[in-house]
Amino acid sequence: MRVLGVDPGLTRCGVGVVEGVAGRPLTMVGVGVVRTPADAELSHRLLAVEEGIEQWLDEHRPEFVAVERVFSQHNVRTVMGTAQASAVAMLCAARRGIPVALHTPSEVKAAVTGSGRADKAQVGAMVTRLLRLAAPPKPADAADALALAICHIWRAPAQNRLRQAVAQNRLQQAVALHASKGRTT
Amino acid sequence: MRVLGVDPGLTRCGVGVVEGVAGRPLTMVGVGVVRTPADAELSHRLLAVEEGIEQWLDEHRPEFVAVERVFSQHNVRTVMGTAQASAVAMLCAARRGIPVALHTPSEVKAAVTGSGRADKAQVGAMVTRLLRLAAPPKPADAADALALAICHIWRAPAQNRLRQAVAQNRLQQAVALHASKGRTT
Repeated sequence: MRVLGVDPGLTRCGVGVVEGVAGRPLTMVGVGVVRTPADAELSHRLLAVEEGIEQWLDEHRPEFVAVERVFSQHNVRTVMGTAQASAVAMLCAARRGIPVALHTPSEVKAAVTGSGRADKAQVGAMVTRLLRLAAPPKPADAADALALAICHIWRAPAQNRLRQAVAQNRLQQAVALHASKGRTT
Repeated sequence: MRVLGVDPGLTRCGVGVVEGVAGRPLTMVGVGVVRTPADAELSHRLLAVEEGIEQWLDEHRPEFVAVERVFSQHNVRTVMGTAQASAVAMLCAARRGIPVALHTPSEVKAAVTGSGRADKAQVGAMVTRLLRLAAPPKPADAADALALAICHIWRAPAQNRLRQAVAQNRLQQAVALHASKGRTT
């Protein structure tokens, strides 16, 4: 599977494409940062993020897009821009029918380092090792985007099993409801 | 001038189009709400908001889009969705080259009621009176969208004067800098 990871932000939006399956060595397909000028109008910055994400989708045709889940508790000053950049990334994917998954920062850190409280350097080091890169991707937003994509590939089997279990459970409930209705009428 | 006001939200996104100029009676061109199902995936909800906004832009061809400025301080639980819906509205406008203005809730309330701390009922009553409607638009999000459009029309002359003053000041500074450079070389 090919996944585009997006570490959303208005000033720097990290993007990274990883290909592979859980349990096998992964390959980095591309990594970069979409930047927008801090002094531009907000609507123009969102448009620039959209153009950047569209280019990455056009060029790399990912099957999944993994975006960092934004929390309102952290970094109150920048969180609105982050939420808005993430909305643009999700929108671009949804328009193309590409499934979007959200992963929390601690899920991503736990997936690639084993600890949900790992620091940026540790995440960068593990991304470098897991993708067999010569050096950690810079800036940190680019490394975080790759970590998101890796996290998604590794979590996907578990998530698919969960989704199947939920779907099966709903089906069983529907069948049971149908059967009980059949009895009462 | 014709203005689309947007009161952003994922569950209910208020939209209202008002036409007119400051100092003259205003006319409501259209009002409504773009709704998305609360149980849908976030990316699909953003896509539904985009489709709704696009329809309003197609149908009413506004010259300006006025969006409520979202603050992270209020309603922490819903603020992320509001920020994301507002990003979609701004993006749709920017893609068409339509200027976007952000107004705070207290600016809007002060514009239509004279008080920045007016309640929903007061805003609804003034929107009804100013647009000469038979009854207050329902739900409140729809009335708020109209209030945003009215606020933008009334504030536009002052904002344009301010923008002109800033531009003129920059021009004078540039001329002065050029003149002083001319003297030293």
